[in-house]
Amino acid sequence: MAQLPHTEALARRTAVPLAEQLAARYAERIEQRLLPAGARLPSVREAARRHGLSPSTVVAAYDQLQARGLVEAKRQRGFFVREPRPDLAARRPAGAREEDSAPRPLVDATTLIRGMFQRGLPGPGMGTLPADWLDLPLLQGALKRAMAGDDSALHYGEPAGDLRLRQAVAAGLSDLGVPAAPSQIVTTAGATHALDLISRALLQAGDAVLVDEPGWAVDFARLSRMGMKLLPVPRGRNGEPGPDLDVLAALLAAHRPRLYVTVSVLHNPTGGSLPLAAAHRLLKLAEAHALTLVEDDTYAHLASPHAPRLAALDGLQRTVYVSGYSKILTPNWRVGYLAAPPSLVDRFIDQKLLGGLSTPSLPERAIALCLERGALRRHAARVIAQLDAARSRAATRVLEAGCRFVTPPAGLFGWIDVGCDTDRLAEALLDDGWLTAPGSLFHATPRPTTLMRINFATSQDGRFWRALQRQRDSLGAATPAQTAPQRLPLVAVTK
Amino acid sequence: MAQLPHTEALARRTAVPLAEQLAARYAERIEQRLLPAGARLPSVREAARRHGLSPSTVVAAYDQLQARGLVEAKRQRGFFVREPRPDLAARRPAGAREEDSAPRPLVDATTLIRGMFQRGLPGPGMGTLPADWLDLPLLQGALKRAMAGDDSALHYGEPAGDLRLRQAVAAGLSDLGVPAAPSQIVTTAGATHALDLISRALLQAGDAVLVDEPGWAVDFARLSRMGMKLLPVPRGRNGEPGPDLDVLAALLAAHRPRLYVTVSVLHNPTGGSLPLAAAHRLLKLAEAHALTLVEDDTYAHLASPHAPRLAALDGLQRTVYVSGYSKILTPNWRVGYLAAPPSLVDRFIDQKLLGGLSTPSLPERAIALCLERGALRRHAARVIAQLDAARSRAATRVLEAGCRFVTPPAGLFGWIDVGCDTDRLAEALLDDGWLTAPGSLFHATPRPTTLMRINFATSQDGRFWRALQRQRDSLGAATPAQTAPQRLPLVAVTK
Repeated sequence: MAQLPHTEALARRTAVPLAEQLAARYAERIEQRLLPAGARLPSVREAARRHGLSPSTVVAAYDQLQARGLVEAKRQRGFFVREPRPDLAARRPAGAREEDSAPRPLVDATTLIRGMFQRGLPGPGMGTLPADWLDLPLLQGALKRAMAGDDSALHYGEPAGDLRLRQAVAAGLSDLGVPAAPSQIVTTAGATHALDLISRALLQAGDAVLVDEPGWAVDFARLSRMGMKLLPVPRGRNGEPGPDLDVLAALLAAHRPRLYVTVSVLHNPTGGSLPLAAAHRLLKLAEAHALTLVEDDTYAHLASPHAPRLAALDGLQRTVYVSGYSKILTPNWRVGYLAAPPSLVDRFIDQKLLGGLSTPSLPERAIALCLERGALRRHAARVIAQLDAARSRAATRVLEAGCRFVTPPAGLFGWIDVGCDTDRLAEALLDDGWLTAPGSLFHATPRPTTLMRINFATSQDGRFWRALQRQRDSLGAATPAQTAPQRLPLVAVTK
Repeated sequence: MAQLPHTEALARRTAVPLAEQLAARYAERIEQRLLPAGARLPSVREAARRHGLSPSTVVAAYDQLQARGLVEAKRQRGFFVREPRPDLAARRPAGAREEDSAPRPLVDATTLIRGMFQRGLPGPGMGTLPADWLDLPLLQGALKRAMAGDDSALHYGEPAGDLRLRQAVAAGLSDLGVPAAPSQIVTTAGATHALDLISRALLQAGDAVLVDEPGWAVDFARLSRMGMKLLPVPRGRNGEPGPDLDVLAALLAAHRPRLYVTVSVLHNPTGGSLPLAAAHRLLKLAEAHALTLVEDDTYAHLASPHAPRLAALDGLQRTVYVSGYSKILTPNWRVGYLAAPPSLVDRFIDQKLLGGLSTPSLPERAIALCLERGALRRHAARVIAQLDAARSRAATRVLEAGCRFVTPPAGLFGWIDVGCDTDRLAEALLDDGWLTAPGSLFHATPRPTTLMRINFATSQDGRFWRALQRQRDSLGAATPAQTAPQRLPLVAVTK
């Protein structure tokens, strides 16, 4: 896989002209789709400032990119990444939305998720643990044991998924107080796939869906593409860990949404977990309004088993619970699951079959072995300890860099206020080779914000914090206290 | 996995009363979802006839099922399989369609695909090769080689899929005359997943889509659920191997559909392959109407490399090509792909990421090894020879059983006329323990038909043909020649 070199500055002593170096850097990012079609390049003045080049050098670089057909100039508007080679099939389908032809911000949801897949890119914006925190021998050993004497390759997998995994999942859920029989579990190709199945089975275009805001960009993008109307429920307001249930109640009354997709424990990006009383009130509201709750517990293994889960309180009556193993064992194998009320299970299985038939048995069986033997539990305990230490170090960096926590740091992500527009900051940092997650990504309707999400585990590099400080300063950041309405009740490294 | 015992008759000499045996048999099928919720049980008279029981015994069996909460009686209408235990979350979503509450036929698309996943069920209706035709040592060896020194588990896979697989696929496509660079290939969790991605990326609810009719039930069900308007293009009329292009031209003019999803080679269920001249005309029509073609080449490895592919004629300009390895190497690993015009690739990758992130690397790498070393080619040659022999034997059985071929037998499937309603026949045969694929499943709008699909490889058991003959006779089948408007130009075992 191509690696994006981590370069803080262009090399001034090589034989390669600076314009050519700059053009090559942009060309590589366009190739890797880190600069998506339609994205606007920085203005000539801005790029010159960032790289300490003369404007004429930047113009020369942009001309080279234009000559190679990678970007196009639009009068008065600047340079834009071109669509790939057009051909007869390229006309936009009826489904294309207006915003598809509006200029895209440089770091949007697509950039972020493509960046997540770019091995070489240092990623304070990533959503996963660093590779060297995972346990490769554990995974390989489990896979080899699962393979011994296995003939599953010859048949489709069971529609609901490998029975041994479903049994192990049911046992694990029971430890969380969630009463799920193996017959209520449906395995999926990761939690994202589970969320997709649920939406497709229960919604149709035009339906209203409640979502946490801030929340996860990929969920917003997926639901929007399906034609759903997103109803954002504020989360982490005034440092509160849960959703604003007064707003939720008003939205329920006004729009009669069918689903609320929510992260109750270690919410992405705020790190908040739903307090018990809020969970109780939410379930009563759901019951009164015939609302189905989709509880995304993607970060379950990084959280306390004592944190209240909606599915535990409600006994899987109107909650569909979703989790997986990408954030703790391996992102590559794509093993996740949903646990559902009995009346909904078949609908989800049918949707799974229609969209791609069954899921592969072998990785599911291997994960089952990890669960059965307690290996996952031991591994998770190690990761949690490691993450606690990393969070503590990163929290210090955050404060030293002049940023503030909007919500108390917990879990994998910090939700911080940097005091300047994070879309512009993310552009500048990407130019330095750092992929970050600007706050606008976490809003159902993107808007300028001074907030951003950092991954505690992948933001340990002092060079990143120096780059951030430098770019903040050059963007004329106010200190967060002056700009941000949010105040942090307590900056504490919670464990 | 529970096995459905193959029972042609109830056991008359055991201590278990016949009513209880009959109830147990239905209960098991309801449990396995082979009888879906809403399905109507055979009438008391019909069940009594099939099993040689007195009506009162059948009534006793149905009463037992009702007491167990598995079925419910509806006045004047008979007995119906109940929805699973209702609870608060069970109300139908807005998306539920009218027909969801209408009685379902006993063997519908859901039954058929669930049956495909039921290992013990003898399956003349199956869509895959029998397990013992596959090469387990080849698969296990490739997987072990792929695992050696591999650390892919630690990272997400590349968004487009494993590069080595994409390179091997591109080389294979080049042998078919399809000019695809590795960057035009996107791996998927099987061909079904590829078809789903394409529809989701290019269509929105309400769009018109051309489909082959007869065609594959799962495709119809998926597109219908997405809210698409299906425009059936007749296939195999008068024994012709290709679609009726006059009808297609009229539909293009009248409805301006965006896509045509079609199987050009070894079409399911008719076995026909698109003649070269028809392919040329189809591409001209597509060009004139800005239509994108989705060429589903799922059975590619069972077909001649010389059969013309649309994607070869058109150079992947307005054709998206789909294939996979479920029908030749392993249905379980879920490895398939699409090859697309450059302008569409990114849209498909984005859809793949939003719906479930990347696909697992290890099985993709293992399949790449099978391709690179020629192992797939050699295996496919063996399977083709074996299938030719099986087809020849099954064709004889078809004719001996008093059925006729509607189209010349080719590939994996025979499209036959049995001379009686195949929905009723499929019900009766399921009762005998045989899963068949009645012709109504292959129509976009199900309608009574005397046609059905048989899998040549899985219909070698003489007991099946005897059961079919018996049930045909008891359903008062006319000979096909009397009832069927179709006439077979030539019943020939083509190779």
